[in-house]
Amino acid sequence: MDVRERVNANKDTLLEELTEFLRMPSISAEPDDSGEFRACAEWVKNKLEEAGARAKILETEGHPVVYAEIGSGDKTLLSYGHYDVQPPDPLELWNSDPFEPTIKDGHLFARGVADDKGDVMARIQALRFFIEEHGELPFKLKFFIEGEEEVGSPNLAPFARRNAELLAADACLWEGSMRDETGRPEICCGTKGMAYVELRTKGPSHDLHSMFGGIAPNPVWRLIQALRTIKNESGEITLDSLHELADEPSEKDLEAIKNIPFDESSLKRSWGVESFDRNLSGEEALREYLLRPTANIAGIQSGYTGPGSKTIVPSEAFVKMDFRLVSGQSPEPVVELIRDHLDKRGFTDVEVIDLHGVEAAKTPVDSPIVETAVAAWRDVGRNEATVYPTIGGSGPTSLIATELGIPTVMTGSVANMNSRIHSPNESIKLDDYFETVAYFTRLFERFGK
Amino acid sequence: MDVRERVNANKDTLLEELTEFLRMPSISAEPDDSGEFRACAEWVKNKLEEAGARAKILETEGHPVVYAEIGSGDKTLLSYGHYDVQPPDPLELWNSDPFEPTIKDGHLFARGVADDKGDVMARIQALRFFIEEHGELPFKLKFFIEGEEEVGSPNLAPFARRNAELLAADACLWEGSMRDETGRPEICCGTKGMAYVELRTKGPSHDLHSMFGGIAPNPVWRLIQALRTIKNESGEITLDSLHELADEPSEKDLEAIKNIPFDESSLKRSWGVESFDRNLSGEEALREYLLRPTANIAGIQSGYTGPGSKTIVPSEAFVKMDFRLVSGQSPEPVVELIRDHLDKRGFTDVEVIDLHGVEAAKTPVDSPIVETAVAAWRDVGRNEATVYPTIGGSGPTSLIATELGIPTVMTGSVANMNSRIHSPNESIKLDDYFETVAYFTRLFERFGK
Repeated sequence: MDVRERVNANKDTLLEELTEFLRMPSISAEPDDSGEFRACAEWVKNKLEEAGARAKILETEGHPVVYAEIGSGDKTLLSYGHYDVQPPDPLELWNSDPFEPTIKDGHLFARGVADDKGDVMARIQALRFFIEEHGELPFKLKFFIEGEEEVGSPNLAPFARRNAELLAADACLWEGSMRDETGRPEICCGTKGMAYVELRTKGPSHDLHSMFGGIAPNPVWRLIQALRTIKNESGEITLDSLHELADEPSEKDLEAIKNIPFDESSLKRSWGVESFDRNLSGEEALREYLLRPTANIAGIQSGYTGPGSKTIVPSEAFVKMDFRLVSGQSPEPVVELIRDHLDKRGFTDVEVIDLHGVEAAKTPVDSPIVETAVAAWRDVGRNEATVYPTIGGSGPTSLIATELGIPTVMTGSVANMNSRIHSPNESIKLDDYFETVAYFTRLFERFGK
Repeated sequence: MDVRERVNANKDTLLEELTEFLRMPSISAEPDDSGEFRACAEWVKNKLEEAGARAKILETEGHPVVYAEIGSGDKTLLSYGHYDVQPPDPLELWNSDPFEPTIKDGHLFARGVADDKGDVMARIQALRFFIEEHGELPFKLKFFIEGEEEVGSPNLAPFARRNAELLAADACLWEGSMRDETGRPEICCGTKGMAYVELRTKGPSHDLHSMFGGIAPNPVWRLIQALRTIKNESGEITLDSLHELADEPSEKDLEAIKNIPFDESSLKRSWGVESFDRNLSGEEALREYLLRPTANIAGIQSGYTGPGSKTIVPSEAFVKMDFRLVSGQSPEPVVELIRDHLDKRGFTDVEVIDLHGVEAAKTPVDSPIVETAVAAWRDVGRNEATVYPTIGGSGPTSLIATELGIPTVMTGSVANMNSRIHSPNESIKLDDYFETVAYFTRLFERFGK
């Protein structure tokens, strides 16, 4: 019997087990006073054991990791996911209890269903179907399921470094990606890095009456003078040497970009804008979005911002900026670039505060695991999975992809563009879940060949 | 007997009457439920009548004006002041009750003593001394004492326009100026105008994940692109035609600037800065401060400004700016300039909101009333009063100086640089008060000649 048929024959059980998982309020942002959080980790461990794996709880400085292994052979596949969820607030915006999974019109509503419990469970169920059919796994499959992804994975780096051998693999399936508006699955081969900085300027030691505006140093104007050296009048980034650091995108990356269906007008409509920045469009916009660094301003503040007309020369000003980085641009050297760039232009007074850094990660689009991921979608009847050379966002993938050198992809699409991840009424389509269970079974078959 | 001697012989009475005035909590920002505010207006009217003037209360849409006339002759002098005071908050920072005048080390502490009750009372007492000595006033003296200065004089413009004939005069003494750090009296011949605007930009209809930072239009960058056309890299104002509108300062103004004692290092020290904007210094700094327009940023705000590293493309941004204007630059045409300047450069999307406008006002430094004001200081032994062609701040002086065409000066220095106007522990030096009573008596003598 084909796996699709077997999945269809087991829909009730699949749904029942997923529902049980979703009922557990594993909110990592809250302390685990009741022990419910750890109970969820134990539950995941048990499910892995039921599927035949040797599972264990590994302690960290924070919430525990669930780790499991099964199978043997020349090759090893690592699966990363997380069993923790975002807080459900604001509760009043939910149409049903976030921890009482509810089905409506073929959609399953619950906190964590799209991020990342559906995905975690689909992989465990796929393993079961595989074992049921084939008896044993002809490669080693490792599950690495953490409990702190939704609070920024504070203990992931030390854990991964300490357990490099345990996590060693030929390829890694990062947490799943999404489906686009047309239902087409996405496969993503990298994440951007990030340097998050605050630039601060000082004027007078206290707010002054703006009668002195002609001679008092104004910290906002000073900040603007500094910022105007970071982007030119056309909006192009002019930060010294930033582009020199970037690895050139491969021919394959550029080809992959061409194959991405990019519904510009629908994206613009959803943002309520008439055009993209700098009037970018088509492939050029996609290259900018996915393959180039950004110099985004996330916030700026100074002086009086209430109603009416208070007249002061403010005392200080700051801007918050995230530079999304591509392969080759590490956050620390980029922060140094910013410092040097400003110093060289006389802005030694502008303070640069390094708030947060993430490394970019990149797996070649023609890696075997990418080909396997695409082919497995074909196996379940999806001939049109889209390969993204990278995504616009960032994440800790470099710990696996770069530090441990394991080709890493995001694949398996339980979630869709309307899944409201991190928001009230998080949901998935039930059919997407069942299809993804079948998908991972096929992927295991292909990986084992 | 010389007026100085007569003032000295009457110190107790002078102080007693000033104290009575200061006890009345005439806070214009609060409603006058108890009638105390109106009682203060009546008290001022009575004092004017005691001095021999024909006084009356004139109603406005808000708090009433006290108006009085005395004397006759070819010339008319108008005296403007206000009997209302700022709220005393924060009360806990006062060392004594703000409405229980307290003397300490030769200083008199009370709300309103420096702004503007001491000044109002000094002029009324000067009139009394003059009448005592000379029997009658050989010119017409008009008192125009309003009750809403501390809330922005909302009814002053309609009142002045409606009563142009009543207020007609050859010269006007605006509310008094100050003494500088060395005790030297200041005479100010003008105020800057102001155009207060908010510039607003829009990005996406809601904050976006900054993974889209490479292609989503960012309203802060857009605002910065607009602002960089308003000042160049050197910090000079480059707003189209702004400077063309300005009247050239006269030779006399430039001469007056040369005579202003300007203690740069003490000013920088009090601001906690190492240098003025654009490294201005000396006469050049004074010209910038007093004779040229400004393009000050009073506040700016967009996006996330809390702790840590939230990653968004904000939905909107705004900046609050006050352009202090010099003679020739009216606020409305300046707002139009800003609009045209932005439109011409493609920033038609940047919204310009006109929040508040004030006209500049300028009386020539060689006007007879300025000469009289300087000479009267010499009469009381102050040979070094400083003439400021204008001040850096703004006020409604143009209603009198420009609309009614009456040469207007600020003179009579009850207050000093440490008087803490609008702040807790407002104070004056008692000797300055007594000297100012004598000063105004001398000024009336000179004006009547």
